[in-house]
Amino acid sequence: MPFPPTSRLNLERYWSTIEESAKIGIGRPGGLSRLTLTDSDREMRNTFRAWCEASGLVVTIDELGSMFGRRDGTDNDLPPIFIGSHLDTQINGGRFDGIAGVLAGLEVCRTLDESNYRTRRPIVVVNWTNEEGARFSPPMVASGCFSGQYSADWVRDRIADDGARFGDELERIGYRGAAQCGGYEVDSYFEFHIEQGPLLDADKRQIGIVVDALHCHGMMVEFHGETAHTGPWPMEWRKNALAAGARWLTAVDDLGWDYAGTGGKATAARLSAWPNKPGILSDHAIAVCDVRHGDSTTARVMVEKMKRSLAEAAARNGCTFKIADEWMYGGPIFDSELVSSTRRHAVRMGYNFADISSQAGHDAYFMARYCPTAMIFAPCKDGITHNNKESCEIGDLEAGINVLLHCVVERADR
Amino acid sequence: MPFPPTSRLNLERYWSTIEESAKIGIGRPGGLSRLTLTDSDREMRNTFRAWCEASGLVVTIDELGSMFGRRDGTDNDLPPIFIGSHLDTQINGGRFDGIAGVLAGLEVCRTLDESNYRTRRPIVVVNWTNEEGARFSPPMVASGCFSGQYSADWVRDRIADDGARFGDELERIGYRGAAQCGGYEVDSYFEFHIEQGPLLDADKRQIGIVVDALHCHGMMVEFHGETAHTGPWPMEWRKNALAAGARWLTAVDDLGWDYAGTGGKATAARLSAWPNKPGILSDHAIAVCDVRHGDSTTARVMVEKMKRSLAEAAARNGCTFKIADEWMYGGPIFDSELVSSTRRHAVRMGYNFADISSQAGHDAYFMARYCPTAMIFAPCKDGITHNNKESCEIGDLEAGINVLLHCVVERADR
Repeated sequence: MPFPPTSRLNLERYWSTIEESAKIGIGRPGGLSRLTLTDSDREMRNTFRAWCEASGLVVTIDELGSMFGRRDGTDNDLPPIFIGSHLDTQINGGRFDGIAGVLAGLEVCRTLDESNYRTRRPIVVVNWTNEEGARFSPPMVASGCFSGQYSADWVRDRIADDGARFGDELERIGYRGAAQCGGYEVDSYFEFHIEQGPLLDADKRQIGIVVDALHCHGMMVEFHGETAHTGPWPMEWRKNALAAGARWLTAVDDLGWDYAGTGGKATAARLSAWPNKPGILSDHAIAVCDVRHGDSTTARVMVEKMKRSLAEAAARNGCTFKIADEWMYGGPIFDSELVSSTRRHAVRMGYNFADISSQAGHDAYFMARYCPTAMIFAPCKDGITHNNKESCEIGDLEAGINVLLHCVVERADR
Repeated sequence: MPFPPTSRLNLERYWSTIEESAKIGIGRPGGLSRLTLTDSDREMRNTFRAWCEASGLVVTIDELGSMFGRRDGTDNDLPPIFIGSHLDTQINGGRFDGIAGVLAGLEVCRTLDESNYRTRRPIVVVNWTNEEGARFSPPMVASGCFSGQYSADWVRDRIADDGARFGDELERIGYRGAAQCGGYEVDSYFEFHIEQGPLLDADKRQIGIVVDALHCHGMMVEFHGETAHTGPWPMEWRKNALAAGARWLTAVDDLGWDYAGTGGKATAARLSAWPNKPGILSDHAIAVCDVRHGDSTTARVMVEKMKRSLAEAAARNGCTFKIADEWMYGGPIFDSELVSSTRRHAVRMGYNFADISSQAGHDAYFMARYCPTAMIFAPCKDGITHNNKESCEIGDLEAGINVLLHCVVERADR
């Protein structure tokens, strides 16, 4: 018997799991501050595991702490369908970013149980460790390792600003699993997520069909100068690494304004200097910036300008610099067949949809290098995110999770 | 019997005390990192106290931990002469900054003992707590309190970046004394210090007669914005407090270059943002900048430009700002009679001197508001300071300490 095309997820039950999650790792009013591998992350993981197990999912933890709740299919030798996102949040995060996607995966399984429906392929609900990168840099390390970008050892050696080591914190909260990270075939990856942008909400769209991702190019840069007294030391002799970093951030911010008219963005995200005290010039600074644009050629131009401004900033302030890390993602990374499937189901169910580009980073970007991947977006109020004011109404999530349900079942029955 | 005009300090003995000090709170190679109210500060204080007491000085500790080693005169009802500076250092500090001045005071007293000479007025050697401000902001709090700028309670409530409270750390190292900070008459204040600039060394001068101080105007500013995602959030809606702070620092640094040709300086000294993470715009930043110029009118123009660039930076990045603290010092603050005395003794002893402006901040600036004050500068290699490469030869200090000796005795016998 085919899966009933009229089947819908239980929206109230799904919403109740989001509300339970919103009680764990409370941040500023209305928001969450559930940083990865903290006690509140552990509490959320325990809750999620209990929910999975109550639904008969077999939960596996991998060596980086990512959680995999598996619902068997009728042919378990076939590679599984992944539905994933993350349960960690930014330091001033919201209640939906990532969370809505993981819990939608759980709700898909619950609904299939209620319908007594067994897909051909297994379905696995995934909670990726440290998507946000708010405690351990870089972000998306677990999906990055799964898809072969990082080694597990390298990830476990990441150090947080608070001095903690990723691997130690993973052990501490009891979520270093035995399973290898990756190394097996996955049929396809679906990620449902709030848009984290204002377009769907402004246009009153119920769902975003994610067709591609903004081209993003980011860099972490170290500046090296020399300490000296802030008073008598002549400007010509100064090697103020803080000033070099600030100068680069300012140039990058200006670059964002230059391209704002065509939807470009450039972000001065992070600057830390040492000693960073009044009275002494800083001899070391670390800065993180990125540029984003929908057009690949324009994005490349922005990258060139970002790099030129880096050399200029360092030279102007008498410092040297080193690009310590560099990353890029985006473009037409999603699987056209899966994208068509999400659009087709949205049309069939009569939802008011829009094709849209993803602008934030997501685990889906790494998974798209590993297997056919699709994303589905829900509107969120005014597009506000990475802020405690992030907000969705229950109805904002309805279209996205139901399209997810049918796309997943269709793919799993293939 | 008058004090012999041919008397000179014991340069070797003086140098040995500097070398002893250089063993306490060792920092980067050749330098010190003896932050105020730390264990190494306590160790240096204990050493200094022992030296004072071995020379018969009566040591008093005041309520902010400043140390006063008193050598009686023949008329102890008269207000004392102070010889002071500081024994704390920057985080990447040198072996002479401040230290050379305090130990010169000690050596003056030792020499007077050897000469069996008793001045009319008492002489007090002072070690001011927290001149550098490298751990607790602002700098020069103890001389600031002594001279009536700050209350002792306010100073004790200062919090370091490491979370420690000034008053608690003062108790912890056992240097909260019973004596009131200030409140009595001081005849005059002398401070011997390395130049912390390149002029004397470049000109091969043995001593600098400090005639005035650069006009300095500094500000601590708070920027307030809003967190948001660094990816999708349109440039027009961003309120990135880090970008606003970086923009202000860059404008201030540019201002320094605009006035470099006439000896002006402008310093981007400190910038701390929150959350300061990749992926999220920062909603809070604290920045410290200052401008300095020898000409008072030009300095005022620089201040106006610094303030205008502050408003512009905040507006450009959609942030609000608040000037949390503001300070100014400099100008013709030194006592003309004492300045003449230092020059006259330098001439008499045949030293190659130059009149010079002080460019750094010093406890003498606050003391100049309290009593007639003079400073004497020694050359230091290439003017390097607030850096472990700060360096003096033994001979660099000779002229300064001998002029100090005779000026102090002359004043104390007045």
